[in-house]
This record gives sequence, C-alpha cells and structure tokens, in this order.
Amino acid sequence: MQLLRRPGRDALRDLTVAISFRGQFDESYTDGDNSAVLPTDTMKNTVYALAAREPVHEPETFGLALARHFLERNPRLRRARIDLTEHLWGHIARGEREYGHAFVRKGGEARTAAIQAHRKRLIVGAGIADLLILKSAHSAFSGFPRDEFTTLPETRDRILATSLTATWRYGDADVEFGSAWRAVRTTLLDVFAEHHSESVQHTLYAMGQGVLDAIPHVTAIRLVMPNKHHLPIDVSRFGVEDRHEIFVATEEPHGLIEATISR
Amino acid sequence: MQLLRRPGRDALRDLTVAISFRGQFDESYTDGDNSAVLPTDTMKNTVYALAAREPVHEPETFGLALARHFLERNPRLRRARIDLTEHLWGHIARGEREYGHAFVRKGGEARTAAIQAHRKRLIVGAGIADLLILKSAHSAFSGFPRDEFTTLPETRDRILATSLTATWRYGDADVEFGSAWRAVRTTLLDVFAEHHSESVQHTLYAMGQGVLDAIPHVTAIRLVMPNKHHLPIDVSRFGVEDRHEIFVATEEPHGLIEATISR
Amino acid sequence: MQLLRRPGRDALRDLTVAISFRGQFDESYTDGDNSAVLPTDTMKNTVYALAAREPVHEPETFGLALARHFLERNPRLRRARIDLTEHLWGHIARGEREYGHAFVRKGGEARTAAIQAHRKRLIVGAGIADLLILKSAHSAFSGFPRDEFTTLPETRDRILATSLTATWRYGDADVEFGSAWRAVRTTLLDVFAEHHSESVQHTLYAMGQGVLDAIPHVTAIRLVMPNKHHLPIDVSRFGVEDRHEIFVATEEPHGLIEATISR
Amino acid sequence: MQLLRRPGRDALRDLTVAISFRGQFDESYTDGDNSAVLPTDTMKNTVYALAAREPVHEPETFGLALARHFLERNPRLRRARIDLTEHLWGHIARGEREYGHAFVRKGGEARTAAIQAHRKRLIVGAGIADLLILKSAHSAFSGFPRDEFTTLPETRDRILATSLTATWRYGDADVEFGSAWRAVRTTLLDVFAEHHSESVQHTLYAMGQGVLDAIPHVTAIRLVMPNKHHLPIDVSRFGVEDRHEIFVATEEPHGLIEATISR
Repeated sequence: MQLLRRPGRDALRDLTVAISFRGQFDESYTDGDNSAVLPTDTMKNTVYALAAREPVHEPETFGLALARHFLERNPRLRRARIDLTEHLWGHIARGEREYGHAFVRKGGEARTAAIQAHRKRLIVGAGIADLLILKSAHSAFSGFPRDEFTTLPETRDRILATSLTATWRYGDADVEFGSAWRAVRTTLLDVFAEHHSESVQHTLYAMGQGVLDAIPHVTAIRLVMPNKHHLPIDVSRFGVEDRHEIFVATEEPHGLIEATISR
Repeated sequence: MQLLRRPGRDALRDLTVAISFRGQFDESYTDGDNSAVLPTDTMKNTVYALAAREPVHEPETFGLALARHFLERNPRLRRARIDLTEHLWGHIARGEREYGHAFVRKGGEARTAAIQAHRKRLIVGAGIADLLILKSAHSAFSGFPRDEFTTLPETRDRILATSLTATWRYGDADVEFGSAWRAVRTTLLDVFAEHHSESVQHTLYAMGQGVLDAIPHVTAIRLVMPNKHHLPIDVSRFGVEDRHEIFVATEEPHGLIEATISR
Repeated sequence: MQLLRRPGRDALRDLTVAISFRGQFDESYTDGDNSAVLPTDTMKNTVYALAAREPVHEPETFGLALARHFLERNPRLRRARIDLTEHLWGHIARGEREYGHAFVRKGGEARTAAIQAHRKRLIVGAGIADLLILKSAHSAFSGFPRDEFTTLPETRDRILATSLTATWRYGDADVEFGSAWRAVRTTLLDVFAEHHSESVQHTLYAMGQGVLDAIPHVTAIRLVMPNKHHLPIDVSRFGVEDRHEIFVATEEPHGLIEATISR
Repeated sequence: MQLLRRPGRDALRDLTVAISFRGQFDESYTDGDNSAVLPTDTMKNTVYALAAREPVHEPETFGLALARHFLERNPRLRRARIDLTEHLWGHIARGEREYGHAFVRKGGEARTAAIQAHRKRLIVGAGIADLLILKSAHSAFSGFPRDEFTTLPETRDRILATSLTATWRYGDADVEFGSAWRAVRTTLLDVFAEHHSESVQHTLYAMGQGVLDAIPHVTAIRLVMPNKHHLPIDVSRFGVEDRHEIFVATEEPHGLIEATISR
C-alpha cells in the first residue's frame, strides 16, 4: 500500500503484485546452483523500493517499471511477467464533502494489470476481476439440444447473474491507462444491461464486441463468466400464488462460459 | 433472492437467512423421537413461502414474520432466533440514468438483522458486517506498558484499518428499519473519519457513543474491530528516501478489539 | 511452530494461539489512556518467548502457562482466555520406517484447547474441529411433523455426513491431556460408526453420552454437527436402473444441530 | 458421490467433475443460436447417469468414458476436457477392525485426473493437489546474488515447507491408474524426505526426476511448490536462549516455484 500524502487529502494505492520469471535457470534446478536465482525476498523489497522512488501512478506503469528493472539486472531472464491487482478505495464522504484522510473499500471488484516483458517484445494488459452483475429481464435460454439426460426446461425469462472477470490487451504501451480502464468498465456494464440475451455466450460476445468497438487501443479481450444460477422456486406447491419472484442462488454445479474476442 | 417486479424498474432483495430453534426437544436427542422436529428443509420452504406471500420490505420485518410463524406453529419452541444477512445491490447506472433491470453488487459489506423471539420477549437487532475502512492520519498508539517481551515502537502516526462488524439492538420493534440502519452507518463512518485516535479501543468507543447519541432507538451497540495492521517499510535500507508512505498489510498475527456500549 | 530437535528424529508442534483479555480497561476506551493496554504485539512475542523457555508439551499445558503469565503481570485483567488450535503433522513414512525430519500434514481436522483463567477459577477445555465423517448405513429421518410447506420425504436409509466440531471441559487440570484427547476422539468415532441413527440429534446425543461414560475427567461436552446433506439422484429419469447409489453433496441450505451434554 | 454397496462393507467415490468443451460453437456467441449448445445442466445429469450405468472404478477411466460420450454426441466438439478431483475417504477403524459403513475424510490432499480428448488424440493425466509437506533438516538457501535491495540472510539450515500440487501425463491410456498414482505419491514423498536441498527449485527437480525414473508410464510431470515460509524467531531478544526452534509461518508475500520435467 502506498500512501500519497498531500495537505488535507491523501491518496492511496493498494496493490498486490505477483512477479514471475522465465529464463535460463536450469542449473538452479539440476545442480542447486543459486548464483542466478534472485530471491523472492529481494523481488518483494524491489517492489517497495521502486514504489518509494517513484510513486505509483497507474498499475500498468508501475508494472512496466518493475519489468524493465528485472530485465536489466538479470541477464538470464527471458520473460518477466508482472501481475497487479488493485484493491479499490474511495474517500469516506459526508454529503458533498469528502474526508481527506479516511477511506472505505469500494466493492468486491478489483482492477488488474498484466505486463509480459520479453527482451524484444512487450504485452500490456489490464482487467477487471470479480464484478458481480445481474439482469432481471431480457434474458432467455431456449432452443438447445435435448437428449435422454436433459431435464432443464426452456425459458424466455430467467435471471442472468455472473461474477465477471475480463482481461484485455492494449496494442501498445502509449495509453492513458486510467481513463481506458474506466471506458472498458462502462462499456461492459452498458452492454450487459441493454443486451437481449439468448445465453451467457450471446451476452459475453456482445460485451466483448462492444469493448472492441468503443476503445480503439484494445486489440483483444477475454471474458470469463461463470453462470451464477438463480433457480426459480415454485411457491404454488405451498399454496401461495407464484409470481415468479423467488429464486435461490446456487454455487455448484454451475456453468462457466469463456471466450477471447480479437479484432 | 426476491425480485420485486415493477414496470420499467425491478427491485431485489438478496438475503441469507439462518433460523435457530431452542426449546424442549429433548426426546429427539435422547430417544430419536422426531415428532416435534421441524425439518430444516421445511424451515427453508417456509422462508420462500412467507416471502412470496408478503414481499420482503426490510430484513427486520421479514425476520419478525418468520419468528412469529415458527412460535405459533411449534408449541415446544421457547426461542426462535432469525439471523438475516442482506447482500446489497444497486442498479447499474449510465451517467444520471439507471437501468431498471440490471444490477451490480455494492461493496463487500453486508447489512444484517437479528431477531430473538421468546414467547413473551422480543429483541430486534441490526448490523453491518465486513465494512473495510482505513484512516491515514490522526491515529497513534503510544503510552502502553513495556516489559522484556515488548518490541513494538511507540508511534504518533500510523495507518488504522479495520474490517468493521457492528451489531446493535433497538429498544422496540417500532422503528423505520431502513432509515435507522442508514443513520447508524453514516454515524459510524463520520466518527471514524473525524476521530483523533489513541488506539483502536479509543476510536471504537467513540463510534459506539456517537451512535447512541445520534439514534435514540438504539439501546446498545457491539463493535468488533480487528486491527488490520499496515506495517511501515523502511525504504532507507534500500538507498531510497523514506517518506513514510510504503506499508505492507498483514493478516496474521493481528489484534482484535471488541466492546459493547449501552446506555 | 516449535521444532523439537532430537538426534535423528525431530518433533514439531504447530499451534495457532488466540489470547483474549477481559478486565477493567475502561480508560483505554473512554480516554485513550493506554497505560494498562498490553499491545497485541507483546502478546505475540510472549507466545514465542514462553514456548522457547519451556517447550510445548501439550496445547493445554502451554495455554495454562500463558494464562498464568498474563494474570500475574496484568493486575487489571479479570479473565485471560487462551484458545489454541493444533495443526497435526505426522512423520513421512516409507513402509515401516519413518523419516525423522520430514513431515506430512495429517487430515483436515485440528486439535483444540481452551483455557479460561479467572483469578480464582480455572476452566480447562479441549476439542476437535472440522472432522469430516460419513455413515452410509443405519441412518434414517422419519416421523417428523408435516405442514403445508413440507416437501421432504421420509427416509429409513440416507447418508449421514457432518463436519464434527466437539469441545469439552475437564473437571480439573490434573489430566493427561494427550491420552484423554485421543480417548475422546476414539469414542466419538466409535459411537458415530455404530449408532442406529434416527436423526443427527439422536446420534449427536449418543456420541456425547458415550464420551461422558468413557472418560471420567470430562464433565460436559458440546457437539456441533452441520448436516452435510447428500441428496439422492433419481437416475431412473435417465433410463438407468436406480440402485440408490448416486448422491450430490450440497452446501447450502443446510441444517446445523448442536447441543451440550453434561453430567 | 457414488456409494458402492456391498454386504458388510461399502466403498465410496467422492468426485468433483469439471467438463469443458472447445469447438465450433461460434453461432451461439455471435447470433444467440443455441442449437448446438449442450446445457451445463445436461452435462451434470450425464455425470450422474454414466456413473450409475457403470460404477466409477478410477477417476481416469470415468473421465475417459465421459469424454467419449460427449465426443460421440456433439459433432461440433473438437476437444472435451474432463478434470476430476477425488476427495479421499477411509473407513473408520477400531484397532485392526474397520467399520464397513462409516468413513472419515483422509487429509487435505486430493487425487486429481485430467482427460483431454480430441477426435484423434488423447492425453491422460493425473495428479495430487494440496499435499502439505515440511522438512526440518537438510534444507539450505545460499549463494544467491545480492543487490542493493537484498536483505535476506544466507542460511544452511531452514525449514522447507510447501503445499505440493503435482500433475503428470501418462504415455498411453493403458495404465493401472490406482497403483500408478500411489507409486508417484510414494516417490514424491520419499525424494522430498531424503533430498539435501539447496533450494525449492533443487528439490522440485529431484522429485520430478525421481518420478520419471521410477514410473515408466509417466512422460512428463509438472510440480508447483509455493514456498510456505517459516521465519525463525530470534528469542534471544527476549532474554531466552535461542535454540533455533521457534518459527512463524507466513502466508504473504511468498515465493512460488514451478517447473515441468519431461523425458
């Protein structure tokens, strides 16, 4: 966590950083020769030191700085991968006014970034993790094949709920990462809300296509959407009029839909 | 989950309900006589049926309806306890406009309610669970006793962070539960933000007292505040100027402060 | 974790320790006066120091030493409660022979102990947490009341599964804690395996009674047994002969049965 | 869960099954055309039906049967992947004698299997997940590079602990899967226990090589070994003799070592 102290109003960046190295480190495995093995403890310290040297602006730029540092220092390293998860906080507000030094965690979702830096190639990605969303109208599932094991009824009106995880790639590293991230998030939510869904697949594709249409920097997007089933409860069994409004959310078994949509 | 269908704009209530019975059920334990044992499966169905009969308005009122139902039907029941956890959702918004049928989960926190219904006595409680909050100024910890095992330095400037769980009791059941809950939440956040803290204990007490002062219906409040330690990293070891802005959040070991404050 | 180094064969104790203080600490809450507040960081250090001074033999004896230490040092302390959870490890074995310095975690269950030390009263307890057990025969649930919300069929043959948590109290502190713990565990498993069960309640009571009968030191035992439902799948719907052998384990909703059985 | 009922002694198989399809399903995404989308609900029912038709012998053979079934029925399917996790149970024992109908969960570890079935190619894999192991001797970490961010001391004597996850591939499907799995497990534990470790990497490689040497059916093995750091506590700060026997297990930050070793 980095606290950016400013008079009357601090900012904070709360990041979990994962660093992975791939390269020519065979002797450490085969012979126990550690002469090229940068300890994970040193990697950890490097995260603190680089953040202190140059405050974290965006997760993507911090990831790029880390990747460059490790590639320069470690000649046997072929690829450094830096995965960053930002836990989002907002200032506590009282009406219009915000407290400058008090924060509340925003939601369960996280902002993610992923840097894959090879010596001659760089891939910059970003993402959203664990965004819980739900549609109570314009969601159907019908027309699917039936066999001797099929018991699912067709439906033209079901709850569609998911815990969205999206990751996308930028065509280059010259992006305003903060505003691009917000634009992708807004587009995903808008398309999800407006889509007339024939299936999770159908809505997933529309969301991905919406992002490619709206944000030119994005070259490909991967969406992972577990189907968080909400089973309707038939309350007419209990002598109560069934208005199709009671559901039970189940965890298992569940469907998991995923796809990558590229230009 | 209950979906309240209205033209152009649905509402939803997403509740986890726990029901516990205490009473004269000895024979089921000692003799395997199930003649007074209401199956948990029936309890579950009762939750669905009662919600369908009369839509859930507030968690507290729904809990009261369940408690009354079980006390009426089960003569051996001495006390029914209903614990409700509401998972909070908001409509997805596009600028000023909200989508009527699309929802996003609000935060990690939950709204809770607890009904303890005896035949002649009723206790109605409410709460907030898992609200992550953090102060970056006006937080100290000093003046504590030192012995041969003490290594903690004194500090006048530390990060104070917690995952707040608060539960409180109302003096009667004649409360506007929704607005009372929002008033308690606002008060807890305001006091937390404004307090000049000498310890978690100190701030906890101020928060509880603030609630008792502001919301007359509340007769007692319990606050549980794990100390989510954010340890400062001394980056001067790495040849970087230390501006006291890098911290690492640790999970274990941690302190846990709790108290009940009553009128 | 304490490693007891012996030539050729180490032993280890892997404990999580929770310490809670209750007493006259009002000023720390009301005035921010920390002069009597032993920091949790010091409590943590005390755990390390006391274990190093006198190696942990049994969780109960270590808890007693901690409780005594804190009561002696902290005059405002009325009650020290020490909860210990031991994570169990065994030596890795090769046939008959065990490796002296290599360990594998034993199961998901944990051994627990709980010391409640007042200035003039001492309660020593022990327990087992999260022991997953299952019966595939001699388990029924029938004869329960039915109302308009009942859909559960009666059964004389169901799977009974639970994640057992048991906690018990000893009449005094003069117990061979290790062998007593093993005797309780054996009794719980034997009775569970042999019982002709009419319900979870019925089996829970028999298990508790079995412990009181077999281990004279135990004065009371509390058993908590969530009903880990295994729902039978009717495969005749799929054109397959139903031999009543396919089940699906469900997490929610579930029943939770608990009771304390005392002499 | 499948219960194999035999007079006096049941057996049980407790499996979690994940099925994933890859193929030409574009229209379901682009046009909402579900005519080739086998519902996940039907996949679930198929698992029950096939297990009921032919009792599960080994996870691998059950996975193969499922993969074959789906490939035959779904012409657009290019690859069916079946991942199986077996939760291990043993009979409750009383001395030498085992109860035929009562079970206790064995450990935290799971047995896994993975079938990847293309129309003309088949890959059969197996694995172990979450096996907690620890070495208290013959473990060092030294000789690593140092830079301005390095603070880790060199050590010739540390605790090495990990939660091992291993997955391996068989060269063909004509394997006695149960005995092969047990042979791999035994080899992994033996090498871990006996190895003189210069690093996690070093021991990981020796374990993988040991498996390739001992079990000819295995063509490649992947090992994932998080470094579950046990930090030594210097108790001499507390005036106690330091015998290097007190450690604290930390979760984060931690190292994660992984490699695939093939013939």
